[in-house]
Amino acid sequence: MVKKYILTPGPTPISEEVLIEHGRSLMHHRSPEFGEIFSEVSEKLKKLYKTKNDVFVLTSSGSGGMETAITNSFCKGDKVLVASMGNFGERFKKISQTFGLDVIALDYEWGDIVDPQDIKKHLEADSSIKGVMVQFSETSTGALNDVEAIGDIVKDFPAILIVDAISGLVASDLETDKWNLDIVIGGSQKGLSAPTGTAFISISDKAWKMIKKSDIPRFYFDLNAAKKSLEKNQTPWTPGISIIVAMNKAMDLLFEEGVDNAFKRHEALAKASWAGAEALGLEMLVSDPGKRGYSTTAIKVPEGIDGGELTKVMRLKYGVTIAGGQGKLKGKIIRIGHIGYVEMFDLITAFAALEMALNDLGYDFEPGAGITAVQKTLMKNNYLDKAIS
Amino acid sequence: MVKKYILTPGPTPISEEVLIEHGRSLMHHRSPEFGEIFSEVSEKLKKLYKTKNDVFVLTSSGSGGMETAITNSFCKGDKVLVASMGNFGERFKKISQTFGLDVIALDYEWGDIVDPQDIKKHLEADSSIKGVMVQFSETSTGALNDVEAIGDIVKDFPAILIVDAISGLVASDLETDKWNLDIVIGGSQKGLSAPTGTAFISISDKAWKMIKKSDIPRFYFDLNAAKKSLEKNQTPWTPGISIIVAMNKAMDLLFEEGVDNAFKRHEALAKASWAGAEALGLEMLVSDPGKRGYSTTAIKVPEGIDGGELTKVMRLKYGVTIAGGQGKLKGKIIRIGHIGYVEMFDLITAFAALEMALNDLGYDFEPGAGITAVQKTLMKNNYLDKAIS
Repeated sequence: MVKKYILTPGPTPISEEVLIEHGRSLMHHRSPEFGEIFSEVSEKLKKLYKTKNDVFVLTSSGSGGMETAITNSFCKGDKVLVASMGNFGERFKKISQTFGLDVIALDYEWGDIVDPQDIKKHLEADSSIKGVMVQFSETSTGALNDVEAIGDIVKDFPAILIVDAISGLVASDLETDKWNLDIVIGGSQKGLSAPTGTAFISISDKAWKMIKKSDIPRFYFDLNAAKKSLEKNQTPWTPGISIIVAMNKAMDLLFEEGVDNAFKRHEALAKASWAGAEALGLEMLVSDPGKRGYSTTAIKVPEGIDGGELTKVMRLKYGVTIAGGQGKLKGKIIRIGHIGYVEMFDLITAFAALEMALNDLGYDFEPGAGITAVQKTLMKNNYLDKAIS
Repeated sequence: MVKKYILTPGPTPISEEVLIEHGRSLMHHRSPEFGEIFSEVSEKLKKLYKTKNDVFVLTSSGSGGMETAITNSFCKGDKVLVASMGNFGERFKKISQTFGLDVIALDYEWGDIVDPQDIKKHLEADSSIKGVMVQFSETSTGALNDVEAIGDIVKDFPAILIVDAISGLVASDLETDKWNLDIVIGGSQKGLSAPTGTAFISISDKAWKMIKKSDIPRFYFDLNAAKKSLEKNQTPWTPGISIIVAMNKAMDLLFEEGVDNAFKRHEALAKASWAGAEALGLEMLVSDPGKRGYSTTAIKVPEGIDGGELTKVMRLKYGVTIAGGQGKLKGKIIRIGHIGYVEMFDLITAFAALEMALNDLGYDFEPGAGITAVQKTLMKNNYLDKAIS
């Protein structure tokens, strides 16, 4: 018997309560019954995003949300500044280029974060820049950008700020309105811990002004159609009904925990995870702890061990699925996701399996050092303390 | 207590077996476990489509599948012939125009079908036509086009044939390869009776040649990316994992029944439905039975009764959800869907509720006439006879 555990940066584990809602028969997407649920989901997303802006639900992956942001906001030939420090920054570039935008690439090492001052310099030097794109949490490295500081800069320029918060939302505090984030993209299968298949996107007034002028053709992802439908608590096309129903329940659970408590939980899990890796003599991809987010721990695979083999042994022999590296980091790192419906014992399980797989592959370390460090750090920084007291 | 029944042309009812699969925890979309399921789903879709072509799975509504066909196949300014006899023909036109195609509109009355000879005349008159778009079953009217005859014509011209079979697939026989259908679009929530959120699309060699030359920008719906991923039994972006798992089970059930038996079931249900409507003195939207498909029965709402009110009473008082009219037929017709996981007693239930709601709204008819006609027709044309003998 091998029990299955999933600790990836998405899909994330789904609670029984959410699975049960997800598994129910579908109501019709044009029925008032669904309209009520969709209205609730829209309001809860606004609360989660900390925004007064509309948050639109798309039936697509997060990449569909990224495409939506780009094709709705710009005109062909528009100059955009794309900050990239990983695989999803590269994706922003690729989508922008696909749709004929003039991309200024602001590249950083994979594992580093964006220096907000670099963005300021670019915007000051070129007032024709129409948009700035940046990840909140870069899923491929686990690094977290200071989008508050970036928002504080971009707000004074004509450009809009587009933030991919797909894996960062819920893991760390994000304040859409207070931080002047014009477009924020999220996904159902990350911090929400709902099934895959739905993305969401918030749009500020500043962004709407650009959307009205945009000339890039789009149909399925057209936000004008989405806005018109949202007024009737609908989506323009048939949505992933069961996923939206699941999201509704998932957000109930999140608000029951308290979003701030969820941030503390993710912080505690992330710090325990870093301590576990360190105790095993493993090197972190994001060397500066101040640059790390709380959704994903990216760990360099020790010399002589293949990352693909390591995740394979963990999955097949021990039933624990974690993620490998993406793009140029393929085989070189492993990524432990600790977002969503994940708590302390899941993390200890992940590290226990990691230790056992490392041992199988001949890595030299003190068995138990990782799980002990994880546990000790959790005891020191117990996110349950407040709940119990 | 009001039990809920859904008899719309999508979403369709989902069996317990499929709901249970759909409701399970998610595996990772890059895991070999999912790869195996995705490979099975791809093969089963080919069997369902009766094709050797690849069938790609998209995380989107059927409209996303229609956009995929159009943005991948053509170059800006290409001339396309769009046959329209309902709401979804209009959608083909709108998507084509959105992406800069030169649309020749071949319009028919809503409720009529396409005359294949009209298509032949156009293709003969203008050899620069690059594509022909047509519905198999037009969901908004229930009319069914003779796509076999259309395919037999288009195959001899440079144009490709794009068929929206979203609501027609499984309800009626469709032979992708034998009928020379270059691109066929389907959806998870129709004849398959799986949840909403996934579309699929088959691509012939003739279509691939055009895709290679296409210059319309696309990213999320790019079929080159989908093809590259399919070779690894993956999708390029995170898919609706739980929907694909459900589709896998739904197709097992369908093959267990036998696809030909499913056609017979749909034919028997459709004919019983027509008889029921007639016995109630109601007029069919598609007056010629030879032009009707087997997925949806579109019935004109009697004079003096509002179609919206009729479906509302059926839904709220009797728990039976059917569909109303779309586009210019809004309020003027009702549509009873009898595709997917629907059998004889579901249809009798639908007509019982229809009679009771008509009675509530003051329509003059013989109570019981509808359900009696439905039952009698089913007894005469019992799709179970073969199964029992």
